[in-house]
Amino acid sequence: MMMGKMKVYADRMSQPSRAVLIFCRFNRIDFEEIKVDISKRHHLSPQFKEVNPLQKVPAIVHGSLNLSESHAILVYLASAFPGIADHWYPSDLFTRAKIHSVMDWHHSNLRHGAVNYVINTVLGPATGHPLNPKAAAEADKILSSSLSKLESIWLNGDGRFLLGFSQPSIADLSMVCELMQLEVLDEKDRSRILSPYQKVLRWIEDTRTATNPHFEEVHNILYRAKKKFEQQRSRIAETGTEPRNKMEGHSKM
Amino acid sequence: MMMGKMKVYADRMSQPSRAVLIFCRFNRIDFEEIKVDISKRHHLSPQFKEVNPLQKVPAIVHGSLNLSESHAILVYLASAFPGIADHWYPSDLFTRAKIHSVMDWHHSNLRHGAVNYVINTVLGPATGHPLNPKAAAEADKILSSSLSKLESIWLNGDGRFLLGFSQPSIADLSMVCELMQLEVLDEKDRSRILSPYQKVLRWIEDTRTATNPHFEEVHNILYRAKKKFEQQRSRIAETGTEPRNKMEGHSKM
Repeated sequence: MMMGKMKVYADRMSQPSRAVLIFCRFNRIDFEEIKVDISKRHHLSPQFKEVNPLQKVPAIVHGSLNLSESHAILVYLASAFPGIADHWYPSDLFTRAKIHSVMDWHHSNLRHGAVNYVINTVLGPATGHPLNPKAAAEADKILSSSLSKLESIWLNGDGRFLLGFSQPSIADLSMVCELMQLEVLDEKDRSRILSPYQKVLRWIEDTRTATNPHFEEVHNILYRAKKKFEQQRSRIAETGTEPRNKMEGHSKM
Repeated sequence: MMMGKMKVYADRMSQPSRAVLIFCRFNRIDFEEIKVDISKRHHLSPQFKEVNPLQKVPAIVHGSLNLSESHAILVYLASAFPGIADHWYPSDLFTRAKIHSVMDWHHSNLRHGAVNYVINTVLGPATGHPLNPKAAAEADKILSSSLSKLESIWLNGDGRFLLGFSQPSIADLSMVCELMQLEVLDEKDRSRILSPYQKVLRWIEDTRTATNPHFEEVHNILYRAKKKFEQQRSRIAETGTEPRNKMEGHSKM
């Protein structure tokens, strides 16, 4: 197929963007990464609206195909590019059905809880959302309930990965990237949320190991954000005052 | 394949259950429908937990496969059963990718808005949720924004169905069933929500027509619920009092 190099529009601060980038790099897909900086509202630009009318990252352009939604993108990449190992998106009907099931579950459970918790505790000011403690408390409940189901149902198999598999699928990559955003939380809070779930913690490490060095390289921006937020929190703790510009921690990343 | 007859666990008051049932009936799939009455909390029974540990409908059992999440089920059915027309889940890679994209979008947008609006205005008491006007107002916003994107982006094509297609896909069936739950709202409120979106209204009718008589037969329970809620509302309007038992309207369906 002569379709030119695929373009991936992404902001590495967005967890579904990271999942798509790690997948492309790990699988040696030839692509061009185009940064869409959400903190600078570049996702709302008229240029990006031409690429994705929904104004969300990630999005890809591959020949005449414009595609958004990270799960749809991962399924497409695993299907369209040659030489991608079957475990990423198994061709067996039963196995593939289970992968779709856990990815569908993800939307209204793990993603819903994690995104709303992080936005309403740490990331809000950097993305133009006011912090909302009541919404944070509700998201906390959904996140904990989702982690409990992840531990007892989806990771309840012999293998190290979701559904008891011995190798990662696109579902592992998507959902581990989701949980990685908890890195920006206060360390005590992150530990309170994750430490009851030992299988989940091991699974995050296993997915990281299975996809390195790409996993760490693509997450570097998040680790830098984590440090900035830590410094901001310790400045507040020392001086008892908030930084003048709440976006300072984020905008320097 | 000798797998025995497929079992579909469903409550016809659940919109994703209805989508799966209509798909099976329209495509003459040989299956057994097993009612899981949510208003009687049968989805929380130990027996059903064996079928689906997530305790949600719909779920299917087909041979050794237990599967939940209506989108995953629809994809599986369209792939696993012989003789199902290609338009339901097209095999062309680009087209299939777009179907996945709109179905992924559905979760956090149209579904999120519609479910939370209906639960927090009408259905809550019948399913054990207290009404929450603030949550209803937030859901209303998400629903309206989703309908606007549905009208201007997803239905912005030459054809009558999503993505400009001339025949329905599993995405049309899933999303139209989602919107059908608005039938239980007060008629003025339903009209306020839907009437600005003429393409959406036409698309609901086109999907209904394309899948009849199964669409209407499977929705009958919803029309009966609609009548009960209407009667309840007019009793309240006449007497100025709420019925003694708030679940009355629902439990008699």
